[in-house]
Amino acid sequence: MFKATIDANLLKDSIESLSVLVDEARFRISPEGIAVRAVDPANVAMVSFDLPASAFDGFEADDSEIGVDLNKVTDILGVIDKNEKVLMELDEMSQKLLLQIGGLSYTISLLDPSTIRAEPKIPQLELPAEVVLNGTDLRKAIKAAEKISDHMLLGVEGDVFFMEAEGDTDRVRLDMPRDQLIDLKPGDARSLFSLDYLTDIAKPASKSNEVTLSLGLDFPIKINFAIPNSDGKVGYLLAPRIESD
Amino acid sequence: MFKATIDANLLKDSIESLSVLVDEARFRISPEGIAVRAVDPANVAMVSFDLPASAFDGFEADDSEIGVDLNKVTDILGVIDKNEKVLMELDEMSQKLLLQIGGLSYTISLLDPSTIRAEPKIPQLELPAEVVLNGTDLRKAIKAAEKISDHMLLGVEGDVFFMEAEGDTDRVRLDMPRDQLIDLKPGDARSLFSLDYLTDIAKPASKSNEVTLSLGLDFPIKINFAIPNSDGKVGYLLAPRIESD
Amino acid sequence: MFKATIDANLLKDSIESLSVLVDEARFRISPEGIAVRAVDPANVAMVSFDLPASAFDGFEADDSEIGVDLNKVTDILGVIDKNEKVLMELDEMSQKLLLQIGGLSYTISLLDPSTIRAEPKIPQLELPAEVVLNGTDLRKAIKAAEKISDHMLLGVEGDVFFMEAEGDTDRVRLDMPRDQLIDLKPGDARSLFSLDYLTDIAKPASKSNEVTLSLGLDFPIKINFAIPNSDGKVGYLLAPRIESD
Repeated sequence: MFKATIDANLLKDSIESLSVLVDEARFRISPEGIAVRAVDPANVAMVSFDLPASAFDGFEADDSEIGVDLNKVTDILGVIDKNEKVLMELDEMSQKLLLQIGGLSYTISLLDPSTIRAEPKIPQLELPAEVVLNGTDLRKAIKAAEKISDHMLLGVEGDVFFMEAEGDTDRVRLDMPRDQLIDLKPGDARSLFSLDYLTDIAKPASKSNEVTLSLGLDFPIKINFAIPNSDGKVGYLLAPRIESD
Repeated sequence: MFKATIDANLLKDSIESLSVLVDEARFRISPEGIAVRAVDPANVAMVSFDLPASAFDGFEADDSEIGVDLNKVTDILGVIDKNEKVLMELDEMSQKLLLQIGGLSYTISLLDPSTIRAEPKIPQLELPAEVVLNGTDLRKAIKAAEKISDHMLLGVEGDVFFMEAEGDTDRVRLDMPRDQLIDLKPGDARSLFSLDYLTDIAKPASKSNEVTLSLGLDFPIKINFAIPNSDGKVGYLLAPRIESD
Repeated sequence: MFKATIDANLLKDSIESLSVLVDEARFRISPEGIAVRAVDPANVAMVSFDLPASAFDGFEADDSEIGVDLNKVTDILGVIDKNEKVLMELDEMSQKLLLQIGGLSYTISLLDPSTIRAEPKIPQLELPAEVVLNGTDLRKAIKAAEKISDHMLLGVEGDVFFMEAEGDTDRVRLDMPRDQLIDLKPGDARSLFSLDYLTDIAKPASKSNEVTLSLGLDFPIKINFAIPNSDGKVGYLLAPRIESD
C-alpha cells in the first residue's frame, strides 16, 4: 500500500528534477520514503532522487515499485493552484494511482516498471574540488554561455571557481572567487560539459540557495542540492565531453 | 439611428461571449438594448445574448439590425486601455460603425445582415436538474478534463454535482456536494459534452461568480450567467454527444 | 583605446534604437563619445545616433571605428539584470570587445568596419511643420493603424496633428489638437509612411516623453528624441510612400 499527502509545489519541484532527464521513471516506495535512480536515454546523465517520508504531510507505505509517466503528472499539476495539497493513493490491484487535489480526483494508469529502463548503478567518485554556490548564479552563467556555444568548461583555478564558454569568435567567462561562493574546496578541476544538459539541470537547481558541485580533471560533475522546503535531495552526475583542442 | 457609450471592458466581455461560437453576428438593436441570437457553424451550440440599454452609459436607438465582424472589433479593443469608454455611432447611409476610444476614431464597415446566418429559434427545454456554481470552479474542472479526454460528462447524483472525463487509461472527476455549490436543484441528469465547446464557453463564464447549469438525461445543457458589471446576460445551449459505452 | 562604463539599461536602449533598422553598425568612437549613422538595407530609413561621453559613468577613448554585430550584443544584454553596470573595453590588437557585466566577462569579435555599409550622408531638410508629443501616444496610434492597413498618413491640419490609416473597408484616425500635444508648429504637412518602419521606430520612441516629428507635404519625416536618462539622442529619417489615390 501507498498513501501520502504532499504540498503541490513540492511535488512539482520533485517531478521536474526527474523530467529534465527522463520521461518515465521507476519510483521505489518504502516506509522511509520515495527514491528514484534514472539515467537519460543517451547515457550522459544520471539522477538520484530521495524524498523521505518526513517531506510529506502524511506518508504510509509498504515496499513497492511503480512506473510513472512524468509528463502526465506534470500536465495534471499544471492545472492546480499553488499551496494546494495533493493526496496520492496507490490501487495495487488495478495498478492505478489516485491523485486528489482541491476537489479534483485523478485516476492515472501506471506503467509496468519492468518496461522502464532499470535503475543505474550510481558510481562512487572521489572528486578533488568542491564548490558551493547559489543556484541562480549557476543558472545565470549557463544562460550566458548558451548564447555563444553548446558546451561549457567548469573548473577551479587556485581559489577561484570559473565557468567558461567559447564560440567560434566569442567567449564568455564567469570567475567566482571564494568570497562570492558559499564554500570552496580547491583542487585540480577542469572539465567540459554539454550545455544542453547543464541547462536542463540548472532549471531545478536554480530554485536552491545552495548547490554543491564536485569536479575533477576531465571527470564527471556531481551537482547536488536539496529540494526546496523539504528534506528531499537530488543529485545529478553528468559525464564530461572531450576537449578537442 | 444608434448611438451609445459603453465601458470598454464590458464591450470586450460582450464580444467575447459571442466570438467563442461565431465570427460574424447580427446585432438586433432596439430602444431597449442589443440582442444577439446565433448558432455555431457546426450546429452544436447556440448563444443568446442580451445587453439592455441600462448597461450602457448612454444609449439612443431606433429599431435596426447590423452585421458585425466580431474579430475586427476584438482586434480594435485589443489596443485600448482598460476603463476607457467607447462611443459607438451607426452611419446608416454608408453602413459603417464609428467607434471612438480615447481619442482614436475607428470607422468600420458593417456586414450585410442578410449574408449572416439567420437567427436560430432557441428551443424551450424543461431540464430537471439545476446547478449554480462559481465560474472559476467550472473552468478548473474543464481544464483538468482537457488533459485527458475530448469530451466530458456532467451530471447530478443525489445531492452531488459531478464533472467527469475519461481517457484511454486515465480519469478525472470533480464531485461538488451541495455545500460547495451556490445552489442545487437535484434531478435525473447525466449528459456527455464536447470539451472543445465547453472550453470555449467556460472562458467568458469563468468571469462570472454565478453560473447556472441546467441539465437532463442525454439532453442539451443550458449555461447561463450575467455579463460581469452589467444588467446583460448570456445563455448558451450546447447539444450532448452520444455516450458510446 | 576605448574603455567605458555604462548603465546596462541605457546600453540596451541605445542598441535597440539601432537594431530596429540594421543588424550591423559602424560605431564611430571619439573622446567626445560614440556616434552611429546608418541606413536600412532597403534605403527607406536612416538613423543618426549620438551618445556623448557624459552619458557614461566613465569614458576614455581615442578616435577609432569598430564594427558591431548588434544582435550579438542584444543577446548578451538579454541575460543580465537591470541596473547593472557594463564595462566595455576594446582590444585593438585582436579587434575584440570585452564586456564585463555582473561578474560575467564576454569577449566578442568585432566586424571589420569596411565590410559594413558606409555611413550615409544625412540630408538637411527644411520641414514646415513640427509636432512634439509623448512617445506612448505615437505608439498607440501606430498599433491601432496596424490592425487596418500597412501604411499610415501623418499630417497637420490647422492646429491639429493627425494620424490616419485606411484599409479596404475600415479607417482609423487620431486627431490631436494643440492642447493634447507638448508643442505644435503648424505648417503644410501630409505624408504617407510604411507602418512596418513606423512600428519599428515607435518601439524605442515610446520610451521617451518627448518625441519631435518634423513633417512636410509628401516629404520624409524626421523623428527625434532623447535616449531616456541620458544626454544621448536618436533621430530617424523615414522616406514617404506615394499616396496612390
